[in-house]
Amino acid sequence: MENDFIFGLRPVEEALKSDKTIDKILISRDLRGEALQTIRTLSKVKNVQVKQVPDEKLFRITRKNHQGIIAFISPVEFHSIEDLLPNLFASGKDPLILILDGVTDVRNFGSMLRTSECMGVDAVIIPARSTVAVNADVVKTSAGSVYNIPICKEIHFGSILDFIKGSGCQLVACSEKANKDMNFCDLTGPLAIVMGDEGEGIHEKTLERCDNHARIPMSGKTGSLNVAVSTGMVLYEVVRQRG
Amino acid sequence: MENDFIFGLRPVEEALKSDKTIDKILISRDLRGEALQTIRTLSKVKNVQVKQVPDEKLFRITRKNHQGIIAFISPVEFHSIEDLLPNLFASGKDPLILILDGVTDVRNFGSMLRTSECMGVDAVIIPARSTVAVNADVVKTSAGSVYNIPICKEIHFGSILDFIKGSGCQLVACSEKANKDMNFCDLTGPLAIVMGDEGEGIHEKTLERCDNHARIPMSGKTGSLNVAVSTGMVLYEVVRQRG
Repeated sequence: MENDFIFGLRPVEEALKSDKTIDKILISRDLRGEALQTIRTLSKVKNVQVKQVPDEKLFRITRKNHQGIIAFISPVEFHSIEDLLPNLFASGKDPLILILDGVTDVRNFGSMLRTSECMGVDAVIIPARSTVAVNADVVKTSAGSVYNIPICKEIHFGSILDFIKGSGCQLVACSEKANKDMNFCDLTGPLAIVMGDEGEGIHEKTLERCDNHARIPMSGKTGSLNVAVSTGMVLYEVVRQRG
Repeated sequence: MENDFIFGLRPVEEALKSDKTIDKILISRDLRGEALQTIRTLSKVKNVQVKQVPDEKLFRITRKNHQGIIAFISPVEFHSIEDLLPNLFASGKDPLILILDGVTDVRNFGSMLRTSECMGVDAVIIPARSTVAVNADVVKTSAGSVYNIPICKEIHFGSILDFIKGSGCQLVACSEKANKDMNFCDLTGPLAIVMGDEGEGIHEKTLERCDNHARIPMSGKTGSLNVAVSTGMVLYEVVRQRG
């Protein structure tokens, strides 16, 4: 499987009108006109992020006549947590959601999807501003589980966190700076776990929204785990507590 | 840092006589003579694996005049668990050892070293027959922790397992086929955790030597975790139980 993209104003407009799932659209900073307005409107309706970039960036992706616009096709369909969560509650189970606040590495992302599927996570949420793309590398490192777990790519990340919390899920941030070990936190009941990016950790605004901050007990000198490994530890702790 | 190697009969002999740490030696199937005997003897003394390969394999590594012999220099020094373990017991702590029975992927290996260092593992053991090399990729994915945790590369793998067991460590195999969840196994006290390769799992002969078999509780459809992630989960469970 290759990373799939299409280019040109008309093809991108048609793709937006079709049932194709578009990951994101890059447009040239110099692009103007009516066709662009149509694309912006359609993107808003379909919840697709449109990003302005310099012309050189587009030419690095293709040397063909892209007319200042490239759209990336996603191998998976994205879901909306606002649609999923009420159904999870209605089914009588305690939802388990994984929120990746700023994941950037595709291998880590794929690995986290694989672990999530194995540990019974109901949905994985990434912010639309996230630079990570659901591409061939993600599919490979996820061992195909990308097709078996709903991924929600959310534009209004802050209000989505509020929605999840308002629905009755405990929002727990996994952070090295927390002062409580996660095995002393109650991780039963409806739950959303928030993991940060390896480099920057969880964003301050996200941290403020969380009900609890939990840390992984460590004893070595390095004190910094790979984010895919720490996600595995947290999800295991949830499964253990839920029995 | 590049993967370092030297070639030619005389240079490899001199390297074996020096304090350089040699990871492994590849020799051509057609190589004969007295110089080779010297190299074989020195390798035995220094616990270095010598592997016969077709000439083409050597030419894929270098087109230069290798004289049928290439030695790989390791960026880290290897330890002997027979030296380390008595000291660990003498220090009054409960040793925690990680045994990787057949790890092949360098990224997984690096990641497991990083996790081990964070979770207080005292030594990581790999069999000398393991195809994984301690190279630049391992150093990178280990986030440098490769320099902070002793790695033991053991030729006589079976008898090393017997030695560890005989010293008083519980030998626990982490296997998907085990019928007991690891949170119901006692992982306190002197302990050696055995992890298998992603593809083949733990070798039958190794499994037979273990005191206990433990599984990670899972609930998804895929039912197969990445080995670096599952190693993280097991080590976390050990740390949790040890409080």
